[in-house]
Amino acid sequence: MAILPIDGGRYGTKEMMAIFSEQKKIDYQLEIEGAAALSQSEIGIIPKTVGKKIYNAAISGKINAKRIKELESKSDHDTAALVESLSEKCTKDARPWIHFGLTSNDLVDTSNSMQMRDALKIIEPKVAKMASILSKRAIQHGKIPAVGRTHGQHASIISFGLKFANWAAEMAKHIERIEEMKKRVLICKTLGVVGTGSLMGAKSLEVQKRVAKKLNLFPAEVTTQIIPRERYAEYVFELALIGATLEKIAVEIRNLQRTEIGEVAEQFKKGQMGSSAVPVKRNPIKSERVTSLSKILRSQVAITFENIPLWHERDLSNSANERFVLPTAAILVDEMLETMIKIISNLIVNEKRIVENLYITKGQIFAEFVLEALIKKGIPRFVAYKDVQRVAFEANDKGIQYIDAIKNDKAFTSNLTDKEIDSIFSPEKHLGASPVIINNVKKSVQKTVARFI
Amino acid sequence: MAILPIDGGRYGTKEMMAIFSEQKKIDYQLEIEGAAALSQSEIGIIPKTVGKKIYNAAISGKINAKRIKELESKSDHDTAALVESLSEKCTKDARPWIHFGLTSNDLVDTSNSMQMRDALKIIEPKVAKMASILSKRAIQHGKIPAVGRTHGQHASIISFGLKFANWAAEMAKHIERIEEMKKRVLICKTLGVVGTGSLMGAKSLEVQKRVAKKLNLFPAEVTTQIIPRERYAEYVFELALIGATLEKIAVEIRNLQRTEIGEVAEQFKKGQMGSSAVPVKRNPIKSERVTSLSKILRSQVAITFENIPLWHERDLSNSANERFVLPTAAILVDEMLETMIKIISNLIVNEKRIVENLYITKGQIFAEFVLEALIKKGIPRFVAYKDVQRVAFEANDKGIQYIDAIKNDKAFTSNLTDKEIDSIFSPEKHLGASPVIINNVKKSVQKTVARFI
Amino acid sequence: MAILPIDGGRYGTKEMMAIFSEQKKIDYQLEIEGAAALSQSEIGIIPKTVGKKIYNAAISGKINAKRIKELESKSDHDTAALVESLSEKCTKDARPWIHFGLTSNDLVDTSNSMQMRDALKIIEPKVAKMASILSKRAIQHGKIPAVGRTHGQHASIISFGLKFANWAAEMAKHIERIEEMKKRVLICKTLGVVGTGSLMGAKSLEVQKRVAKKLNLFPAEVTTQIIPRERYAEYVFELALIGATLEKIAVEIRNLQRTEIGEVAEQFKKGQMGSSAVPVKRNPIKSERVTSLSKILRSQVAITFENIPLWHERDLSNSANERFVLPTAAILVDEMLETMIKIISNLIVNEKRIVENLYITKGQIFAEFVLEALIKKGIPRFVAYKDVQRVAFEANDKGIQYIDAIKNDKAFTSNLTDKEIDSIFSPEKHLGASPVIINNVKKSVQKTVARFI
Amino acid sequence: MAILPIDGGRYGTKEMMAIFSEQKKIDYQLEIEGAAALSQSEIGIIPKTVGKKIYNAAISGKINAKRIKELESKSDHDTAALVESLSEKCTKDARPWIHFGLTSNDLVDTSNSMQMRDALKIIEPKVAKMASILSKRAIQHGKIPAVGRTHGQHASIISFGLKFANWAAEMAKHIERIEEMKKRVLICKTLGVVGTGSLMGAKSLEVQKRVAKKLNLFPAEVTTQIIPRERYAEYVFELALIGATLEKIAVEIRNLQRTEIGEVAEQFKKGQMGSSAVPVKRNPIKSERVTSLSKILRSQVAITFENIPLWHERDLSNSANERFVLPTAAILVDEMLETMIKIISNLIVNEKRIVENLYITKGQIFAEFVLEALIKKGIPRFVAYKDVQRVAFEANDKGIQYIDAIKNDKAFTSNLTDKEIDSIFSPEKHLGASPVIINNVKKSVQKTVARFI
Repeated sequence: MAILPIDGGRYGTKEMMAIFSEQKKIDYQLEIEGAAALSQSEIGIIPKTVGKKIYNAAISGKINAKRIKELESKSDHDTAALVESLSEKCTKDARPWIHFGLTSNDLVDTSNSMQMRDALKIIEPKVAKMASILSKRAIQHGKIPAVGRTHGQHASIISFGLKFANWAAEMAKHIERIEEMKKRVLICKTLGVVGTGSLMGAKSLEVQKRVAKKLNLFPAEVTTQIIPRERYAEYVFELALIGATLEKIAVEIRNLQRTEIGEVAEQFKKGQMGSSAVPVKRNPIKSERVTSLSKILRSQVAITFENIPLWHERDLSNSANERFVLPTAAILVDEMLETMIKIISNLIVNEKRIVENLYITKGQIFAEFVLEALIKKGIPRFVAYKDVQRVAFEANDKGIQYIDAIKNDKAFTSNLTDKEIDSIFSPEKHLGASPVIINNVKKSVQKTVARFI
Repeated sequence: MAILPIDGGRYGTKEMMAIFSEQKKIDYQLEIEGAAALSQSEIGIIPKTVGKKIYNAAISGKINAKRIKELESKSDHDTAALVESLSEKCTKDARPWIHFGLTSNDLVDTSNSMQMRDALKIIEPKVAKMASILSKRAIQHGKIPAVGRTHGQHASIISFGLKFANWAAEMAKHIERIEEMKKRVLICKTLGVVGTGSLMGAKSLEVQKRVAKKLNLFPAEVTTQIIPRERYAEYVFELALIGATLEKIAVEIRNLQRTEIGEVAEQFKKGQMGSSAVPVKRNPIKSERVTSLSKILRSQVAITFENIPLWHERDLSNSANERFVLPTAAILVDEMLETMIKIISNLIVNEKRIVENLYITKGQIFAEFVLEALIKKGIPRFVAYKDVQRVAFEANDKGIQYIDAIKNDKAFTSNLTDKEIDSIFSPEKHLGASPVIINNVKKSVQKTVARFI
Repeated sequence: MAILPIDGGRYGTKEMMAIFSEQKKIDYQLEIEGAAALSQSEIGIIPKTVGKKIYNAAISGKINAKRIKELESKSDHDTAALVESLSEKCTKDARPWIHFGLTSNDLVDTSNSMQMRDALKIIEPKVAKMASILSKRAIQHGKIPAVGRTHGQHASIISFGLKFANWAAEMAKHIERIEEMKKRVLICKTLGVVGTGSLMGAKSLEVQKRVAKKLNLFPAEVTTQIIPRERYAEYVFELALIGATLEKIAVEIRNLQRTEIGEVAEQFKKGQMGSSAVPVKRNPIKSERVTSLSKILRSQVAITFENIPLWHERDLSNSANERFVLPTAAILVDEMLETMIKIISNLIVNEKRIVENLYITKGQIFAEFVLEALIKKGIPRFVAYKDVQRVAFEANDKGIQYIDAIKNDKAFTSNLTDKEIDSIFSPEKHLGASPVIINNVKKSVQKTVARFI
Repeated sequence: MAILPIDGGRYGTKEMMAIFSEQKKIDYQLEIEGAAALSQSEIGIIPKTVGKKIYNAAISGKINAKRIKELESKSDHDTAALVESLSEKCTKDARPWIHFGLTSNDLVDTSNSMQMRDALKIIEPKVAKMASILSKRAIQHGKIPAVGRTHGQHASIISFGLKFANWAAEMAKHIERIEEMKKRVLICKTLGVVGTGSLMGAKSLEVQKRVAKKLNLFPAEVTTQIIPRERYAEYVFELALIGATLEKIAVEIRNLQRTEIGEVAEQFKKGQMGSSAVPVKRNPIKSERVTSLSKILRSQVAITFENIPLWHERDLSNSANERFVLPTAAILVDEMLETMIKIISNLIVNEKRIVENLYITKGQIFAEFVLEALIKKGIPRFVAYKDVQRVAFEANDKGIQYIDAIKNDKAFTSNLTDKEIDSIFSPEKHLGASPVIINNVKKSVQKTVARFI
C-alpha cells in the first residue's frame, strides 16, 4: 500500500504519472543511448553500421527495469547496469561503442529534459483550456454588475465577468512564459564527464546537436558535467507560478462561496456528504485542495534554488531531491489544472445573491460615484469628499438608505437633481470599461490558445 | 511501479514506512473510536456495555482499507466509510453510539498525533545513537592535532576530535528539544465539530482526557475543529533542524574527503563503481544524499507555516499538503539518520593526511601562537601583529618555512629563544581546552542518551 | 532619507530599535571585552590589576562608533578597530591584554546573544500581555453563542469567546517555548579562533563561564569559531511562529470584519480616511499589515536554515544576511505584537451581527443537534443522517425555516416533541464545554503570565 | 544611526539607492498624476487646459516629502496627502481634476513599475558586463588544462577557461530573461478602484495607454485594483536567480581559493587584515558575502508567492512586505553584481597551482582516457573497465604513478605502445571541444551584450 498520495492514486492523472514511471525513465535513457550512437555513426566517430544496431536495440522495448535492477545490485551503479542491459541486446561488434564518450549524467539530465518536454505537452494545453474556459465565463457574466471588494470590504461595482477576465489573462501569460522558457529548459547534453566532450573532441558538439534534434530538444551551449540548475529553478518556478494563479482562483471561489456571500458554488455531487456532523454544508473542498497543493508547489522553488551553486563541475547534492521535485511539481500542477478546469466548467453562479449583495450596504457602495458627480459639477474634491463622507456616516448611523440621505441633504440637492441621483445609484451604469476589457481579453486569449485547442 | 522514491523503496526504513501505510492510519483511527466509546461508557455518556463492544471491534484487526474504500466510493466521505465499516463489526445496540460526539477531524488530527508519537519513538533513539557514536569518535580522535579552517583557509590548530564533539553536542540538543515539544505536539483532540464538545457538554473534557491517556497522548486544552497548526510547524521544524545538523556533518565529510584534503572517507563497498567514466574515484555519495534530502526537509517548514492561519474554526487548505509533509518529514529524517549512523560508524579517518595538511602552509598556521608569545613577552599587540604579518608574507614570498624565517628575524629572536620557538611550532601544544571540552561533551551526551540506548 | 521602512520609522518601536543601533552593538562588544579581561584577571591569566582597568574603559561610554569607523577605514577590520579604540582609553600596561585569547567572532556571536537576550526581554512580556488580554476577551464574550465556520461555511455553534481562548492559549505556548529555548540560544562564546581556547588552555572554559555569568548568558559547551547556527534557526523560527499566531488572529479579524459578516471591527480613528475613492469603508488595515509582515518573518527561517551547514570551523556566508535577519525578525515581531495588542484592546465586537448571523441559514446550523437528538432516541446514525439531510435540502429548496420543516416531517415528529425541537433550536444550549474550556484557559494563562505583568 | 545595513550604507550603490528614496517615490507618483491629467486632457475627459497645468506642477520639483508628511499626519492617508500637496501647487481651475478617476493604488503599483524599470536599467548592463568579463576570462584561460572535479573529487581534465564560459553563458541567459519579462512586469495601471476605469468609462483604456507611453511602461490588459502579483513574483524570482548564478560563481571561487587548492584568489588590499588572530590568511570574504546575500534574495521569492492569492479585488496583505522586498531585491542584486564584477576583474589565477593539482593523484585522473583508448582498440568496455580499475587501485595502494603501473601491466602493454600511453597522459590532449565551446560562448555573449556596453 502506498504511503504518499501520488503513488497512492489520490493525486495525479494517468497520462502525467506515466512520464515518471521507472520504466519510462529507462526508455528515455535508452533512447538517448540510441540517438547518440546513431549520431556518432552518421559522422564517423564510431563504425557506420554500429549506430543503427544500438539504436534499434535501445528502442526495441525489450529492456526492462527488472533486468537492470538485477545488474545494478552487483555494480551499485545504475547507468552501468543500463549500459550492460543494452549491451546484452546488441551484437558483439556494437557493444564496445555503447555509451561511447558519454557519462551517466548525460542520461540523467537529458532524460529529465525529455520528461519536462512531455510534461509541458500535457500542461500547456490545459493552461490554454483554462484560459479559454475562463474567457468564456468572462463574456457570459460580463454584464452582471457585482460588488467589487477590497480589504474584504465592499468597495465599488464591477462586472462579475471581470473576475474571470483577470484570471483568463493571467493564464494566457503562463502560455507566454512556457513558450519562452522552453529554449532554456528543454536541453540535451551529451558532452561527457566534465562538459568537454573530450573523447569525441570538437566533433562532440556536432553529435550533441544531432542527438538534440532527434529528441526534439535544444543542444546545450556549454555545461559542466550537468545542465546548469538555474534552468530547473526556472521550470519549477513557472509550474509553481501556474499553481499560484490556480490558488488565487481557488481562494476567490472559497470566499465567494462563503455562507454569507453565496455568489458561487462548486458543483456538489448527488449523495456527496459535506461533513460527518453537518449534513447540509456545501464545502468548496476542491478549491481548498488546490489551495493546499499550491503550498507544496511553491515550497519546491526553494529546493531548486539551493541546487544551483553545486561545487566545481558538479556535486550530487541535487540528485536525491530532484527525484521528488521533478515528478511532484509536474504531477501536482497537472492535477490542479484538471481540478480547476472541472470547478470552473461546473461552477454555479448565483446571480440572485450577486444582486442582493450589491444592496447590503444600503447604497453606500455608490458613494464613489456621488463624489465624482459632485466633482464634475465643479465642487473641489476635498469639499465633495467631506460631504460624501459626512452623509454616508449619518445614513449608516441611522440605518437608512444612502440614496435617501443624499436626497435630503442640501450639499447634494443643490448640485444634483433627483434624476441624476437615481442614475448614480444604478449599478449597471458603473461597469466602466469592463465590457471592452473583457472583450479584449477574449480576443487575446483566443489568439494565444488557438494552437492548443 | 512507483513514482516517488519513498514508495519506490529508495528511501525509507521499513519500521518508519509502516507508520504511514493506509491500513495503519485506519487502525489508528479505529483505536481512537474505540478509546472514545470506552471513555464515554466509563463516565456514562453512552450505555455502559457499549463502549467495550465498540472498542473490541475497533481493535479486532478485522476492518480493512479495502472495505472502507468500497464504502467511501458511495459516500465520498472517508470518515463516514470508516464509521460504517466499524458499524458492520458491531452488534446493533452499539451501532448508534459509534463516533458519538466526534467529528471527522478528531480522527484525522488525533491519528496524526499518534503517527508523530510513533515516529518520534523511532527517531529519538537514533538521534541518541548518533550523539553517542559521535561522542565516542570525539574521544577516539581527541588527541590528534589537525588543521582548523575558517573561510576555507587554514586558520589554526584543533583537536580532530573536536569536530565530532561539536556534532555530538548538537545531536544531544535535539533530544532536549524533542522532549520539550512532546507536550505541545502529541495532542489528543475529541472536542467535535468546532471544539466545544457540544454533544457531550462539559463532560467532553473528561472524555478527551481519558482518550488521551489511553492513547498515550496529551489532551488538548482548547481547539477549534482542529489542533492548532503552529504545533505541526514546531514538529516539522524540529525534524528539519535535525536534518540540518546531519547536513552540516555531511557537508564537512564531503569537504574533508576532497581529493586535495583526504582527511576522511566514507566506506567504499567492494566492487562499487565510482563513475561510469572514472573508475578510481571515491565519491562521498551518502553524504551528498543527506545534503540533498535536507533541502526537502527544510522546504516543508514553509508549508507548515502557511497552514497556521486557517479561516475561522478551520478550513481544509492544510489537508492535502499534510498528506505529503507528515510522512515525508518523518521518513526522510529517519533515512538520513540511518545513513549518517552508518557513515560515522564506518568513517575512515586518515591520520597521515591530517598530519600532512598541518604543514601545507609551511608553518604559517602557527602565526597566531607566535603573536601571542610576543604579547606575553610584553610586546604591544599591534607591534607584534605587524612583525608576525611581515615575516609571514616574506616567508610566503620566498617559499620558505615560517619557523626558519622567524628564527632569522631580529623582531623575534630578540624576544624568543630557539627553544621557545620550537615549542610554539609544536602542534600538540595547541589543543587548548579541547580535551576537557571533549570530555565534558562525552559526559553530558552519555547522560542525555542513557535512557535510549 | 531612509530606504527600508524600519530605518524610515514606519515599523519598529523605539525600545527595540535601540538594541540594534550601531553604537549599542559596539557597547555590547566592549562589555564583552571588559568582562573577558576582568574574568582573566580574576583567575590569573592576565595581570591582576589589568582586568579592572580594561573593564572600566570598556563600559566608560567614551568609545564611539565614529572613532572606530575611522580606525576601520585603515585596517579594513572592524574588530581590530574596536580593540584599538579601547586601547586608546587604557593605560599602557593594560593594552597588551585587551582581547587576549579572543577572536573577532567571540564578540560578534556573544553580542548577538546579548541582543537576543534584550530582544526577548521586550518580546516576552508583550506575548504575555497578548495572552492576558485575549483570555480576558474570552471571558468577556464567553456566553455569546456565535456561528462556528468551517470551509468558510456555517458549521455549528460556538461561544464567541472561544475564538479568543484559542488565541490566548496559543500565546501562552509561546511563553513556554521562549523559556525553554533561552538556555540554547542565549550563549556566551569566548573560546577563540577555532573553539579550543588555545591561548588560555584548559582555563579558557573557566573564563567563558565567568564572562557568561557577568553577561547573564549561558556558557557554550563546545563550539567551532562560532556558536552553531541551528540555535539561530530556533530563535528566528520561534519569532516567526509568534508572528504566525498573530497573523492567524489578524486573518480571523479581517474575515469577521467583512462587510457581509461584520462581527468585529478594528477601531477607526476619527478623521481617518478609508480610501481615496470610497469614503465610508472601514478597512482592517492594521490586521492586514500584521498579515503582510508575517510573510517576511517566516521567509527568514529559510535563511537561518541555510546558515547551518557552514564549512569546517566556520565560513562567513552567514554574516551578511544575519545583519538583516537578526534586527528585522526582532523588530517586526515586536511591531506586530504592539499592533495586535492595540487591535484586540480596542476591538469592536458587534453582538447584534453575531446573533443575526446565527440565523442566516434559516436554522440549518442546528442540523447537527437534530441528528444527535435522533441518535439519542435510538435511531441508527445512518438512518438519522439521511433524514436530517433530506429535510435540510427540502427546506433549503423551499426557502423555509429548518425548524418548520422538521416540525412537519414524520421522521422527526415521531421521535421528538415540539418542545424538544424548540430546545434543539436554542443556540445557548449548544455551547457545550466552552465555558469550562474558557475558564481553564484563563487560569492557565494567568499562571503563565503572572511573572511578566 | 541606521539599523539595517542598506540604510547604514554597508550594502547598496548610490545609483540604485536613489531609486528607492522617499522623495523619488513621490516624484514617480507625481509624474503619474501629471501624465494621467495630460492624457485625460488630450482626449477630452477633463478640460483641455487643465492637463498641462497639473503636469507642470507635478514635475516642477517643488513638492516635497516633508509637506506631504505634514498633510498625511492629519488624514492618515498618504495618497490623499500627495494629491492635496499637488493641489496646493495648482491653480484653482485645475484642482478638481487632479487624481480624476484614479485610486491610490494606481499610483502605488505604477510607481512600483517605474522603480522596476529604473532598477533594470541599472541591473541589466551590469549583468551584461559580467557576461562580457567572464567570456574574456574564458578565452584568457582557455588553453590551460585543469582538474575537473565532481563530488569534490578529481574527475577529469577541463580547460580552466571552461568554468568562466559556463558562467558567461548563464549570465547571458539572464539578459534573455530580463528582456522577455519586461512586457509582463513593467506595467502601467490607471483603471481606478476596482479595475473598471468606471469614472472614465470605455475611454479609461485610452487614458491608460497614453499614460503608459509617457512613462515608458506597458499598459495593463486587465486588472483588479492592482496589477496581479504573479508579475512581482516573476520579477523578484529573476533577480534572485541572477543572485543564485552569482552565488554559484562565489562558491566556486571560495572552493578554488581553499588553502589546499589555491587555483584562484580574490585580490587582497594592501594592509587589509585577514583575521584578528591569524595575520597571513587570505579569506575570500567578498565571495562569502555574495553567498550570504543570495540567501536573502531567494528567501524573498516565497513572500512574493504568498502575495499572489489576495482576496477579491485586492487586500492589503502585500503592502507592508513589498516595502521591504522591492528595494531589498534590487539593491542587493546590484550590490552583488558590483562585487562580483570586481572579484572577477581582479581575480588572481595561479597557473602553477592549477598544473600542480593535475598531478596530485599521480596520474589517476587519466584513467578515463586509458579506458577509452582500450575501447578504441576493440576491448569490450567491461573488460577494459576492470583492468583500468584494477591497476588504478594497485598503483594507489603502492603509491606509484599510474602511468608507470600501466606501462608494467600486460593488459595495457599488449594493446598500447609506450608512445601511445605517453600521449594519453598529456593533459593538453584532453581539452576536447573546450576551445570551440569557449569561442562559441564568446561570440554569443558578444552578440547579447552588444547593446549594453
